[in-house]
Amino acid sequence: MIKLRAALGAEALGTLLLVACVVGSGIMADRLTDDVALALLANTLATGAILVVLITLFGPVSGAHFNPAVTMVFALRGEIGRVEAALYVVAQVAGAILGAVLAHAMFELPLVQFASTQRSGPAQFLSEAVATFGLVLTILLGIQARATPVAVLVGLYITAAYWFTASTSFANPAVAIARALTDTFSGIRLIDVPAFVAAQCVGALAALMAARTFLLPARSPVSGVDP
Amino acid sequence: MIKLRAALGAEALGTLLLVACVVGSGIMADRLTDDVALALLANTLATGAILVVLITLFGPVSGAHFNPAVTMVFALRGEIGRVEAALYVVAQVAGAILGAVLAHAMFELPLVQFASTQRSGPAQFLSEAVATFGLVLTILLGIQARATPVAVLVGLYITAAYWFTASTSFANPAVAIARALTDTFSGIRLIDVPAFVAAQCVGALAALMAARTFLLPARSPVSGVDP
Amino acid sequence: MIKLRAALGAEALGTLLLVACVVGSGIMADRLTDDVALALLANTLATGAILVVLITLFGPVSGAHFNPAVTMVFALRGEIGRVEAALYVVAQVAGAILGAVLAHAMFELPLVQFASTQRSGPAQFLSEAVATFGLVLTILLGIQARATPVAVLVGLYITAAYWFTASTSFANPAVAIARALTDTFSGIRLIDVPAFVAAQCVGALAALMAARTFLLPARSPVSGVDP
Amino acid sequence: MIKLRAALGAEALGTLLLVACVVGSGIMADRLTDDVALALLANTLATGAILVVLITLFGPVSGAHFNPAVTMVFALRGEIGRVEAALYVVAQVAGAILGAVLAHAMFELPLVQFASTQRSGPAQFLSEAVATFGLVLTILLGIQARATPVAVLVGLYITAAYWFTASTSFANPAVAIARALTDTFSGIRLIDVPAFVAAQCVGALAALMAARTFLLPARSPVSGVDP
Repeated sequence: MIKLRAALGAEALGTLLLVACVVGSGIMADRLTDDVALALLANTLATGAILVVLITLFGPVSGAHFNPAVTMVFALRGEIGRVEAALYVVAQVAGAILGAVLAHAMFELPLVQFASTQRSGPAQFLSEAVATFGLVLTILLGIQARATPVAVLVGLYITAAYWFTASTSFANPAVAIARALTDTFSGIRLIDVPAFVAAQCVGALAALMAARTFLLPARSPVSGVDP
Repeated sequence: MIKLRAALGAEALGTLLLVACVVGSGIMADRLTDDVALALLANTLATGAILVVLITLFGPVSGAHFNPAVTMVFALRGEIGRVEAALYVVAQVAGAILGAVLAHAMFELPLVQFASTQRSGPAQFLSEAVATFGLVLTILLGIQARATPVAVLVGLYITAAYWFTASTSFANPAVAIARALTDTFSGIRLIDVPAFVAAQCVGALAALMAARTFLLPARSPVSGVDP
Repeated sequence: MIKLRAALGAEALGTLLLVACVVGSGIMADRLTDDVALALLANTLATGAILVVLITLFGPVSGAHFNPAVTMVFALRGEIGRVEAALYVVAQVAGAILGAVLAHAMFELPLVQFASTQRSGPAQFLSEAVATFGLVLTILLGIQARATPVAVLVGLYITAAYWFTASTSFANPAVAIARALTDTFSGIRLIDVPAFVAAQCVGALAALMAARTFLLPARSPVSGVDP
Repeated sequence: MIKLRAALGAEALGTLLLVACVVGSGIMADRLTDDVALALLANTLATGAILVVLITLFGPVSGAHFNPAVTMVFALRGEIGRVEAALYVVAQVAGAILGAVLAHAMFELPLVQFASTQRSGPAQFLSEAVATFGLVLTILLGIQARATPVAVLVGLYITAAYWFTASTSFANPAVAIARALTDTFSGIRLIDVPAFVAAQCVGALAALMAARTFLLPARSPVSGVDP
């Protein structure tokens, strides 16, 4: 019971800090330069770095999902109960929204906003599906390859995915919702969020199936997958 | 006794090199570009990198605090004595001031200066409290999660925090004092320092309390917190 | 048999995601800025990061070559059979081509294109030979030096090689072919590809020979090469 | 004997690749942008990354000094013989010069050049002394702190030192000599080299003395310095 409460606190606080970083670094970068590539680069490095930190810190407490798509995958794999998973998602969404509010407060902006940045169309849908596919595959296969911690792999994956997908890889329904509440660099129109979330679920499920193929050799009872 | 002297030397030299890097890389970047985001990016990477190095090098000697807020937290946890803690803070502040002077000497600037950059107001206070909260949480929880060294986590945390807080995350009273003595990119008006230090103490204490929740599961006598 | 099928799938999917990242991040960066150095910097960081991720994920499944030059070297060392090696190369080239197509789809560009960017001449040949020499040496010597995972070394090597070779280090025949099919930032004229591939083979073979010298001390039956 | 020959080959090849990267990435960056900070940033990341790779690869073979100042310090500590040390320095300087020539060949520049960039004065002397002090301290203390490999620490240190010293941290007599032979971004007038080398020796010797203080606690026969 104490353990679940700590886990939910970790999911809420971790997602809060993650979104505060995603939104806040976008605001900071946007204010300091007119070059959009440079702004995205700063946004990328900050997000990649904080992901390594947060996943490392809260991994032992809650698994450090910070992401309903990830929690859904672990629920489908039976590694987390249905009720626990639902509570995780509530904690993540609540934390994400508070994270956007915190970023606004730090940068003296209206605390509650609605984004006007349009992000829609099949290419964006494809991008988000690819982005989330890669993220979930990184987590599922990264767990078995112990040479580099999953936290580092996720940070590096997002560093790449911000650039190689046309949607800048939200790859996270909770973050997508929170980004709808900020009319700044990292925002997304509320009306575009459902398609993003659907694409993310599609990508996550595809990764769950793909991972089964690549996890096969490790199902042997003998340990020692790493080279 | 020899051990304490070495520890104080490590705190002074480490903080000196940290501040020389923070101030020096700010001067270098500011001279080479007109794009403030690019200057902050260079400043960020240099600071994040040197933190990993310095904390790794001096960790075995003094714990590598380099930061009165961190020393305060360890004193409150009873991991360092009150007298030792006070000496640590003196060494840190002295090292920090000498670090700013060294940076000025390398860049042929007047050795002693007073900053004119205004950094005040509730948003800056909130930013510094959040920045230090995150830093202290990173240290306290990072120690128990051995997958990635705390030195690396701190470097990555500051890389992110320079961007997602509106104050660029000083998160360190000794550094704040030293920055008041440089009228360059990284400076802060002396009159704004007390509020920064107060915010940093608030953030550090909040992290100390929050960490208690998330350290709970590790308090069992059985080791093996890492996944 | 299942193991070979999974390995070929890993080679195809890994190379697909690698090329999608190389091409996609080039398109994204090129769209967001007029500064070519900044575009290359984003392209570099995305590529270096995804290499660490992909090699870590698929290393236990297929060895994570993603590169016919690397597969050739391992075949010459007798660590992979001739037939298996040929199948690896087919999977890599097919994956690479699909990766370029995927990147175009995400960015709403014509799916099949032919590059117009000229990259030829002796300096480009020398650059690709040096680039591949360094890459293969990194892999062959990196395996024996376990202090840092080979995946990380390869990511860092490519981060450097994008900048210090005049050809921006394709260092991979499959990637060179795929780049001929994209008329974007990272493209190369189809007519220039054969010379690139030849240079890459020369560099790889030189590294194979050079590695023999530096692997000598490790051939002793006593383990413990690392410091 | 075979071991010494391999070690000298490693020192020559490693220093060659290091200088090819330092000089080559400077040329590439300078060609692609007018923003000097951005050029230095690319130069920094390439150099930091290749250092991690080269030190990891050649560490087991030769110790991966690539730097006469480092070899001098290890000779003074009695960890390498005088004759071996002298041969190391010859290999390093020869490799460094060939590295500059290789970079010029890749970028279609005159193979042998003399730099015109003036870098002199007491501030430059101080900068190089500080830069080399930090580098040697990183190596000497980094060896005892096994949490992060020395190769990574050196890469990160140089990443920071390129920015926080006014001389952009050559910190290496062999590299300084080679840079005198390139009239590009990273060059230095031949007439300014002796003062740079002298400063580097001063810094290295100061680090050797400082390290004695901080290595003290580790001299106990009980192992386990790391936290």
